[in-house]
Amino acid sequence: MSDLPETPLLDSVHFPSDLRKLEPQQLRQLADELRAETVSAVSVTGGHLGAGLGVVELTVALHYVFDTPDDRLVWDVGHQAYPHKILTGRRDRIRTLRQGGGLSGFTKRTESEYDPFGAAHSSTSISAALGFAIANKIADKPGKAIAVIGDGAMSAGMAYEAMNNARDAGNRLVVILNDNDMSIAPPVGGLSAYLARLISSQEYMGFRSLAKKVTKKLSRRMHDAAEKAEEFARGMATGGTLFEELGFYYVGPIDGHNLDHLIPVLENVRDADKGPILVHVVTKKGKGYAPAEASADKYHGVQKFDVISGKQAASPAGPPQYQNVFGAQLVKEAERDPTICAITAAMPSGTGLSKFAEKFPDRFFDVGIAEQHGVTFAAGLAAQGMRPFAAIYSTFLQRAYDQVVHDVALQNLPVRFAIDRAGLVGADGATHAGSFDVTYLATLPNMVVMAAADEAELVHMVHTCALHDSGPIAVRYPRGNGVGVPLPETPERLEIGKGRIVRQGKTVAILSLGTRLEEALKAADRLDAQGLSATVADLRFAKPLDEALIRRLLTTHEVAVTVEEASIGGLGAHVLTLASDAGLIDAGLKLRTMRLPDIYQDQDKPELQYKQAGLDADAIVDTVLKALRKNSVGVVESARA
Amino acid sequence: MSDLPETPLLDSVHFPSDLRKLEPQQLRQLADELRAETVSAVSVTGGHLGAGLGVVELTVALHYVFDTPDDRLVWDVGHQAYPHKILTGRRDRIRTLRQGGGLSGFTKRTESEYDPFGAAHSSTSISAALGFAIANKIADKPGKAIAVIGDGAMSAGMAYEAMNNARDAGNRLVVILNDNDMSIAPPVGGLSAYLARLISSQEYMGFRSLAKKVTKKLSRRMHDAAEKAEEFARGMATGGTLFEELGFYYVGPIDGHNLDHLIPVLENVRDADKGPILVHVVTKKGKGYAPAEASADKYHGVQKFDVISGKQAASPAGPPQYQNVFGAQLVKEAERDPTICAITAAMPSGTGLSKFAEKFPDRFFDVGIAEQHGVTFAAGLAAQGMRPFAAIYSTFLQRAYDQVVHDVALQNLPVRFAIDRAGLVGADGATHAGSFDVTYLATLPNMVVMAAADEAELVHMVHTCALHDSGPIAVRYPRGNGVGVPLPETPERLEIGKGRIVRQGKTVAILSLGTRLEEALKAADRLDAQGLSATVADLRFAKPLDEALIRRLLTTHEVAVTVEEASIGGLGAHVLTLASDAGLIDAGLKLRTMRLPDIYQDQDKPELQYKQAGLDADAIVDTVLKALRKNSVGVVESARA
Repeated sequence: MSDLPETPLLDSVHFPSDLRKLEPQQLRQLADELRAETVSAVSVTGGHLGAGLGVVELTVALHYVFDTPDDRLVWDVGHQAYPHKILTGRRDRIRTLRQGGGLSGFTKRTESEYDPFGAAHSSTSISAALGFAIANKIADKPGKAIAVIGDGAMSAGMAYEAMNNARDAGNRLVVILNDNDMSIAPPVGGLSAYLARLISSQEYMGFRSLAKKVTKKLSRRMHDAAEKAEEFARGMATGGTLFEELGFYYVGPIDGHNLDHLIPVLENVRDADKGPILVHVVTKKGKGYAPAEASADKYHGVQKFDVISGKQAASPAGPPQYQNVFGAQLVKEAERDPTICAITAAMPSGTGLSKFAEKFPDRFFDVGIAEQHGVTFAAGLAAQGMRPFAAIYSTFLQRAYDQVVHDVALQNLPVRFAIDRAGLVGADGATHAGSFDVTYLATLPNMVVMAAADEAELVHMVHTCALHDSGPIAVRYPRGNGVGVPLPETPERLEIGKGRIVRQGKTVAILSLGTRLEEALKAADRLDAQGLSATVADLRFAKPLDEALIRRLLTTHEVAVTVEEASIGGLGAHVLTLASDAGLIDAGLKLRTMRLPDIYQDQDKPELQYKQAGLDADAIVDTVLKALRKNSVGVVESARA
Repeated sequence: MSDLPETPLLDSVHFPSDLRKLEPQQLRQLADELRAETVSAVSVTGGHLGAGLGVVELTVALHYVFDTPDDRLVWDVGHQAYPHKILTGRRDRIRTLRQGGGLSGFTKRTESEYDPFGAAHSSTSISAALGFAIANKIADKPGKAIAVIGDGAMSAGMAYEAMNNARDAGNRLVVILNDNDMSIAPPVGGLSAYLARLISSQEYMGFRSLAKKVTKKLSRRMHDAAEKAEEFARGMATGGTLFEELGFYYVGPIDGHNLDHLIPVLENVRDADKGPILVHVVTKKGKGYAPAEASADKYHGVQKFDVISGKQAASPAGPPQYQNVFGAQLVKEAERDPTICAITAAMPSGTGLSKFAEKFPDRFFDVGIAEQHGVTFAAGLAAQGMRPFAAIYSTFLQRAYDQVVHDVALQNLPVRFAIDRAGLVGADGATHAGSFDVTYLATLPNMVVMAAADEAELVHMVHTCALHDSGPIAVRYPRGNGVGVPLPETPERLEIGKGRIVRQGKTVAILSLGTRLEEALKAADRLDAQGLSATVADLRFAKPLDEALIRRLLTTHEVAVTVEEASIGGLGAHVLTLASDAGLIDAGLKLRTMRLPDIYQDQDKPELQYKQAGLDADAIVDTVLKALRKNSVGVVESARA
């Protein structure tokens, strides 16, 4: 989609060891070429762009100053690490980012020794870096650990927990706070306001004063008296920044695009006798690429685009995205009911809540990257008579599992969970897959767990959630577009724990949960064509199960198969348990459960992921045929039909 | 165990409305009587004592000043709420604390309208209180929300997330930081050091200066210019406390045992135009009861005791506690292997790690109440060549579920999880039950999940964990004492995914996981006595399953039963899935799965909890007999034996 940029200097840098042979004055050119290459690559692949552009200079400076990979560089989230990948032996594959078989869109241990810790979920970097630092300390080995973490990620509790534990690492730990005043959405919360004040209260320091100040602060070469005075100052209750109060030496703020500042400061930090040190670096997301800088989200995540114009490839026209169907229906519910409110953890757009936020700002809460707080906050709202929807991706709800158990389900509070990105997620890969929610939720007493089979079903289920006041309820739905069914004018309130027959047959029963229904119907057609009349049910509920329907399906068909886009322990396990509890398996029951495989699936096109998972129509047909063959020798037994 | 104390004033106070009719000068006496009554009650029941004694005056003051229950008072953790229970209509049942059918040892919504939010896990109170405050704000209703949270609980990320989101609550939210410099164990981390500096840098203020300062700070009556100056000061980057930097008005430190200070300050806070406000109250755990004050853990959790001497009833002699078997074996592993290290989240004693901490202080990490950080820190240690054991109770590991998934299992890092308090936990009740770990862990690719059947097995399994470098591994074991088997001199390294036959029979197969093995063996004896020869297997592994053993057991016995102290989706579900995948159910299979019921079980004596759960020998026998009767009419079919 674009000509390759000219990158004569970058072409000579394959690894950080090459980079470290350059003169400091060459680094500006290298950064410019690295930025151009990053833009060029992402214009072909799509992916995260703004974050990487913001840290081009930082990436160059870190690899120049620190001895990677022996010094452990941990990028928080990892979606800003494309320039890092280019500099660490992966440039030849950089145009395979996020493609099947290609480079991951995040850092990944199996990809490079320069990725000492994989990421994708936010705010893990300080904990991991602390692990590296302390392991080196115990083994009395050299080697520092550097965590690069954004201001958004710093709002998560996990980052605070790590900072609170960092003191023992001493000068082996460096935290780079990459403050771009924006992670995915505009910043929220007290910390963000605080960081803004930190920046506005101080001018960027000039090079000389900066280096002098940093040297003075961090080196043992200072006079004893001065040192004592400084330690005393740090000890004063109200004398330091928040980071100093937690035990860090604070350095900054520093212009993160100025290599003449970055390099000497980082060299001082590297050579400091004291620590842990937090370096507050101020960057601009999307820096250096005009279309990104001009865009509201700074090209956080983009489609393929034209480098000159910045124009992104249009998303293919099609049915609405699930997230937007959810958001639109929630707006309708909120118009009807003033107690409906919505909570997101830094994903207002991704969860489809932007319109809700516009229309009902008083009932909309973006809590930042703080799923734990978000869920218990929702529980508090529910306990005081509100009807909260916590809209959180399946994979991120894992962050709030204890809150779901202890604060919501155990107290039987009517919090509604809108679980987006349930199942496989294509280019985002294993770290973002929503594989486990059916299992980890359906095991909880009091929980109601639904999965939407299509966008019309999602409308009904959102409505059902809104009206369900007797306890917690969850609806899961996938990433991407609906299947194209018309949306209902008037949503139905579904009966809790009741499924539906979508297609009536006689020999084969397919018990589907969620959006694999489409494939189940395809499979049914093919089975019919082979003389095996197939019933397809959409169970709708993983908990409570529609026991009557399931019993009937199992006992009136020759073979039954459950299909779900979820890991072991979910619907299939619950259906098997029902069949066992009821003694239905005693006399023989051909029942199979189709589910996600026992591996973490790498990124790929969704249809290829489903094929690998064995969750497409072909696989359903195969499973049915194999089950039927079970008692014969390679020949399908005659169907009862 | 003690005579009842004389409590003439307390006898007249049944609810906070009675309390609010007293004169301020009567409150000292009331507090003294409340303290005596608390000591007396816990001397009979056992339970948490030190925490409650530390907040006697605070409890009186809060109910005196605020309009409970309309003002929502949320006690963090809730184990300090015994005095609160006495003052809120539950004194008549206070000597049933933690008993079956009695009062919960924590706050509980179903128990009283004065418990607006149940707790037991730490650090949820600010999020919940914020929910109450914001709900009132949306509905334009009066009513404040007050969270009382300890300094230990404040070290958890969740509390930070909540503080970061508190600004919108304005003066509807009050956070009482109950700083007793100690939660369960001595304090750790940067926050704790910071709070100590806050206290040491300021004298407690006298009444007049205190009231004046607080009024000035929090009221609109101040002059505009002064207000602006103060706002400006708050806006300065380095001008305030950590709490001010996150958006709170900070008031304190205040002597939490001085009612003459507490009452006027809280009245000012109640009437303030601004907020949110954090009141820093300094208390002493165990205050006012000499034996508690003199004890190292301040009588955090006690057995029944003699009020005069403070002497606790001796724990019944018996086999060693599982936690101590774990701790002792880990010391041995660490003596052998310098890379073994141990992580606890504020539970050094509860997890049996005290001796480890003494012997290997450099390899022992108490991260505070910070399970999320603890697990990812362990992942970082493992990635740098250490062999970390994360020793976390089952119920608290829920806090770190995403870190287990995303940082450990997905990266296949060899973190060892020592999961204590797995299964039912007696007096600690539903909030502390470790019901879900088998399900939420066994669904994860790469995980190895073991359960120890007895203390000797635990020794083998700790050893197996220590030697297992190829990926994550978990061993679960229960609260309480072992069964009395001798501990092995030399631990065995168990083969991953291999179970063992404990007792060979012919007709019935009992597939046990974990410590229900004892009941399984009892059941086997009874079945034998009825002519039903029973095999008992200890599967040891919930993941990976011993497929060969399970197939053999299922196909060579007339009926098979799985038994586990875990909820649906665990071992039973995995065995059923195996049987279904392999087609073993096609021709008929009498297989039943016994597991925890689909309810949250209240506290009770363990044996009664097991009876309620249907997980004792009687229930196993019943299940087998019912399964065998299935195809006949009330008569047991002839056993093949």
